[in-house]
Amino acid sequence: MTAQRLKIGCAGLGRMGKRHALNFLERTPRAELVAASTPDDTEIEWAKVHLAPYGVKLYKNYDDMLKHEGLEAVVVASATAVHAEQAIKAINAEKHVLCEKPLSTSVEISQSVLDAANAKPHLKVMCGFSRRFDASYRDAYNKMSSGALGAPSVIRSQTCDKLDPTGFFVAYAEFSGGIFVDCSIHDIDLSLWFFGQDSKVRSVSAVGITAVEPDLRKHNDRDNAVGLVEFYDGKMAYFYASRMMAAGQEDTSEFIGTKGKVTVNAQPQLNLVQTFDAGGIKKEIPQHYYDRFEYAFVTEANEFTASVLENTAVPLKLDGAVQAVRIGAALQESLITGEKIFFDESGNRVSKANL
Amino acid sequence: MTAQRLKIGCAGLGRMGKRHALNFLERTPRAELVAASTPDDTEIEWAKVHLAPYGVKLYKNYDDMLKHEGLEAVVVASATAVHAEQAIKAINAEKHVLCEKPLSTSVEISQSVLDAANAKPHLKVMCGFSRRFDASYRDAYNKMSSGALGAPSVIRSQTCDKLDPTGFFVAYAEFSGGIFVDCSIHDIDLSLWFFGQDSKVRSVSAVGITAVEPDLRKHNDRDNAVGLVEFYDGKMAYFYASRMMAAGQEDTSEFIGTKGKVTVNAQPQLNLVQTFDAGGIKKEIPQHYYDRFEYAFVTEANEFTASVLENTAVPLKLDGAVQAVRIGAALQESLITGEKIFFDESGNRVSKANL
Amino acid sequence: MTAQRLKIGCAGLGRMGKRHALNFLERTPRAELVAASTPDDTEIEWAKVHLAPYGVKLYKNYDDMLKHEGLEAVVVASATAVHAEQAIKAINAEKHVLCEKPLSTSVEISQSVLDAANAKPHLKVMCGFSRRFDASYRDAYNKMSSGALGAPSVIRSQTCDKLDPTGFFVAYAEFSGGIFVDCSIHDIDLSLWFFGQDSKVRSVSAVGITAVEPDLRKHNDRDNAVGLVEFYDGKMAYFYASRMMAAGQEDTSEFIGTKGKVTVNAQPQLNLVQTFDAGGIKKEIPQHYYDRFEYAFVTEANEFTASVLENTAVPLKLDGAVQAVRIGAALQESLITGEKIFFDESGNRVSKANL
Amino acid sequence: MTAQRLKIGCAGLGRMGKRHALNFLERTPRAELVAASTPDDTEIEWAKVHLAPYGVKLYKNYDDMLKHEGLEAVVVASATAVHAEQAIKAINAEKHVLCEKPLSTSVEISQSVLDAANAKPHLKVMCGFSRRFDASYRDAYNKMSSGALGAPSVIRSQTCDKLDPTGFFVAYAEFSGGIFVDCSIHDIDLSLWFFGQDSKVRSVSAVGITAVEPDLRKHNDRDNAVGLVEFYDGKMAYFYASRMMAAGQEDTSEFIGTKGKVTVNAQPQLNLVQTFDAGGIKKEIPQHYYDRFEYAFVTEANEFTASVLENTAVPLKLDGAVQAVRIGAALQESLITGEKIFFDESGNRVSKANL
Repeated sequence: MTAQRLKIGCAGLGRMGKRHALNFLERTPRAELVAASTPDDTEIEWAKVHLAPYGVKLYKNYDDMLKHEGLEAVVVASATAVHAEQAIKAINAEKHVLCEKPLSTSVEISQSVLDAANAKPHLKVMCGFSRRFDASYRDAYNKMSSGALGAPSVIRSQTCDKLDPTGFFVAYAEFSGGIFVDCSIHDIDLSLWFFGQDSKVRSVSAVGITAVEPDLRKHNDRDNAVGLVEFYDGKMAYFYASRMMAAGQEDTSEFIGTKGKVTVNAQPQLNLVQTFDAGGIKKEIPQHYYDRFEYAFVTEANEFTASVLENTAVPLKLDGAVQAVRIGAALQESLITGEKIFFDESGNRVSKANL
Repeated sequence: MTAQRLKIGCAGLGRMGKRHALNFLERTPRAELVAASTPDDTEIEWAKVHLAPYGVKLYKNYDDMLKHEGLEAVVVASATAVHAEQAIKAINAEKHVLCEKPLSTSVEISQSVLDAANAKPHLKVMCGFSRRFDASYRDAYNKMSSGALGAPSVIRSQTCDKLDPTGFFVAYAEFSGGIFVDCSIHDIDLSLWFFGQDSKVRSVSAVGITAVEPDLRKHNDRDNAVGLVEFYDGKMAYFYASRMMAAGQEDTSEFIGTKGKVTVNAQPQLNLVQTFDAGGIKKEIPQHYYDRFEYAFVTEANEFTASVLENTAVPLKLDGAVQAVRIGAALQESLITGEKIFFDESGNRVSKANL
Repeated sequence: MTAQRLKIGCAGLGRMGKRHALNFLERTPRAELVAASTPDDTEIEWAKVHLAPYGVKLYKNYDDMLKHEGLEAVVVASATAVHAEQAIKAINAEKHVLCEKPLSTSVEISQSVLDAANAKPHLKVMCGFSRRFDASYRDAYNKMSSGALGAPSVIRSQTCDKLDPTGFFVAYAEFSGGIFVDCSIHDIDLSLWFFGQDSKVRSVSAVGITAVEPDLRKHNDRDNAVGLVEFYDGKMAYFYASRMMAAGQEDTSEFIGTKGKVTVNAQPQLNLVQTFDAGGIKKEIPQHYYDRFEYAFVTEANEFTASVLENTAVPLKLDGAVQAVRIGAALQESLITGEKIFFDESGNRVSKANL
Repeated sequence: MTAQRLKIGCAGLGRMGKRHALNFLERTPRAELVAASTPDDTEIEWAKVHLAPYGVKLYKNYDDMLKHEGLEAVVVASATAVHAEQAIKAINAEKHVLCEKPLSTSVEISQSVLDAANAKPHLKVMCGFSRRFDASYRDAYNKMSSGALGAPSVIRSQTCDKLDPTGFFVAYAEFSGGIFVDCSIHDIDLSLWFFGQDSKVRSVSAVGITAVEPDLRKHNDRDNAVGLVEFYDGKMAYFYASRMMAAGQEDTSEFIGTKGKVTVNAQPQLNLVQTFDAGGIKKEIPQHYYDRFEYAFVTEANEFTASVLENTAVPLKLDGAVQAVRIGAALQESLITGEKIFFDESGNRVSKANL
């Protein structure tokens, strides 16, 4: 008797691609990383050292990898610009898909991935919102779901990155879809999770500044932004995204119910150490999102694998990923135009007068 | 040789009036509470026990108290509706004035107090924004002012009350000016303090819900509200106000600079006790704002007294109190209409098109 | 009708004397500081500015102050060496007494104060263990007393001072009675409070080092010491005292019951501020014990005053103060000799063999 | 090219054995779990489901497993009573060994493992003190080693288990070696790590109680114990061990240097969640040591594997494990006899008079 393992390939070996590849190789016992693809020579060299010795076949061409003998699933961890295209190709090639967020910065293209998936209901297609797999967010969700804290009514959530003084994120902003689509998408997804996937948006408004990187304006982006989302069922969420945190990554969420609230990461920390010196008491915090969410990604890989092997529903529905892009894109538009945007209950944009 | 003490009278002996009276009686060594006034018989009875035995003369009529022999100053701690009238009468009677916030729920009436004060520059007239006297906010201000944390750019601040299941605040809402004028006024004042008193508002927008008290809608109010204020100099502030906190009072502020941030009360607590039991680790938090800010009120009384006796500037300028009402009232209007409101650099309301 | 106030005098105007004098002058509404005494000219000069203008009569001689017309009570806040003598003189002169801790560094002399007090049961005589008046310790005591946390069984408590690089405490050690009598006396008193005033000691043992001030050895003292106290009723307490904390004052206590525990000051803090910068998150802590316990001293003054005026029992019994010195002195002896010391149930020292 | 992997077998499949087996199977990429042994039928059944399908050969007899073709290393995770015997057999069979702590409850038997290992210096033999592999303890060690906090002088450390109301640990105490050998052994090891492996003990003393399980006395054990260890170089450590924590596992350490201190787990927590309800703010804490140290065990498995494959020194020296048992056994003796125990600088027990 030998245990069955899911044969999976990894598309893209950039920063996140490397992590996904290693997670499926080393920390997902029920999966077998059999292939990886990247057009980038440097990434191929890395893979020759870290993947190939363990039996992973390397491809420079994604389409070739899709034809790998026995391949059952693909994790799409390439640049955002090709997420949708690669996901759709995999679906059409009868592969299960775990796709990095966002599906696309475009609502329409995101929808096309959903359409492709809906046409193949026997395939598992999931967008990887990592916080859904984080032990703390899950604990918070369970506490809120128990009803003991009343009806969830107000959500505050932020995705705040450590300041990167190299200005990398200015160039990055050209293709990121903007701070609300790139960062707040996680917070938006949390709102849909806690408020219910079918929550309907009534209005969005946003304001932002460029406190440290004025050049972001040429890509219609900001380095600090606050967005406000009003839902039709008497709920609301507000989001803060920033690229200029001094201490490190500060992803904090607050879920406020009518009888209590639950917070996640209200006090960020790297580990359990505190230092006492003449300045007082200090603790360090995670520097990057992967420091914070490393084990969530491992859980994500394991649960996606289990859902395929056991033919159970994936942990989060794909249509939510499209809805998150829709809200993020509207916030980004409001951020740039300064206009508040209204929607009717069918999700159509309307003027305030016609609401 | 005998030390000089400021002869002061207290107008109003309701919840806050009692506290101000006792603070001036017992915890303000350089002041002497010589008089108190209230039209309310129950309050007079209380005062006969707690004030009169210590030499405080009681008046049922405010105007009579103003004529008390030797009276030098008045603390106006009556209902908000008469703050302005009593303050102006005191000013006209040549008394120094410490007035509870807000001056009025009306911008125009607030301005009339400022005008009266400006006409008597030899008098000390101060609006009591208690957080300005809180040791933690002052420490935060000093840290931000040192420049070590860069330029203050984003402020998050909230005034969140414990849920009062009696529904008291529904009736209260009829005269409070609404949640932004009543609660967020403190957060607005903090923004003006940390960003600079001359900061000019570019836009305000707000959203709110009635999660626990739908009846608030008949007074054009909400029990949870989020407001967003954009300033002309590339700064922004966002505020949350709530009437439904389960654990107690949660007044938290976050001042974010380009090189670091400082928080006040990010982890509320009643005292230094933690209880470990089968549920984990617990700590209690203050139940009401006075539990949190008691010593700030004592400091306020002492510093107002010192500024009169030493003829120095009061710790906060009166025009800021008018500006705070202006911003609060605009947020409240946006909360109700759902419209975003824009201002030009002179403070005039303009349409978005004319910005 | 005029409220009755307690006429009190303050003996000693050194560091603590000044604080007690001002607390009775300004923050104890039911008391009237009528006199103060000190043989020190510098202190007299200070008093001429801070006390005399408010009607406080100054004496260079303690005995003279005792004869002050109408004097009803004395707060003894002079050097430890004269605490007992001044307390006894006051008792004999029919004054109520609030005496700073310890009564004496000698068990016998401490006992003589108790004897004098017992001879005048109509007088209120109290030793000022400040933590008994601290809101957090009281909350902890109430929580433990409720029974919800089971039977208190183990206590950990520490009194740890910020390192004073001037070496002041080396000279101070000559008369302090040693680190267990000077510092841990508070922790010992807490043990007697939480375990019950009649708890009987079975053994004490202690170990210490001189990590920063080897010269302390010439006064038979150490700069860091740990003491272990075993009680006859299946309870134990362990104490840590230090003179070399880098961050500030760290007085932490842990009360462990069979069903739960309660801690006081497990996370020291100066105020509610946290600073986020490139080093992480920082908070400052109190630098000295008065920063930590200021309001406890105010409460102490007020409650002592009330117990005299209302002729009620003082909040803590005087014999506990003698017992605390007894335990502290035994720990100090064990610290120096390295021997463990045993007591029989009557409190007599016995050899291990005779236990 | 195929990556080399260490072929390892797991001895014992009880609570910790299962964890070690799964860690080497699933979370140690450079190791291959090829065999496991247990005489227990229930454990064999478990292994048929969880190990065998992945190619792990099962043995009922440890000696048979040692003959497994190609076996290179053994993780000894059986009952403490057979740790030493199995470790020595493995060494004699030329296998590398990772042995669970303690090597034995007997100093002499522990020494025999060390002797066997010393006779085969080409083998890697390591005792698994899990905290050495915990990210927080390592961070604390690095901070202390940097010198910025001065010379480490005082250590406080505790191993406190959640109360197990089944009384399991009473039976367990018969073979555990007692609370200091079973629990505090970790804290002792930390002291040797932070103070230096060659630190020499001058005295030990201990006191304990049975607050919840009086039956422990028949096995010469206690449910709460405090131990004090004095070292020859002016350092000291004090330890608290308990079996009655209500909230969960509380393993806290404090490393105090002459210029600062560093703490590990001063505020225990299960995750990053806080719940706010009418009782205040709550957080849960880990229930058992594996909840707290799970990833330390994974790191341990990976680092042991790497040290064998790369022929580098194991992360902690084996003689320290013997020294830790020596100190733990002395503390346990002092706990029971009530006598303080002294050692000369060569480690011989001497009377106080001959010190």
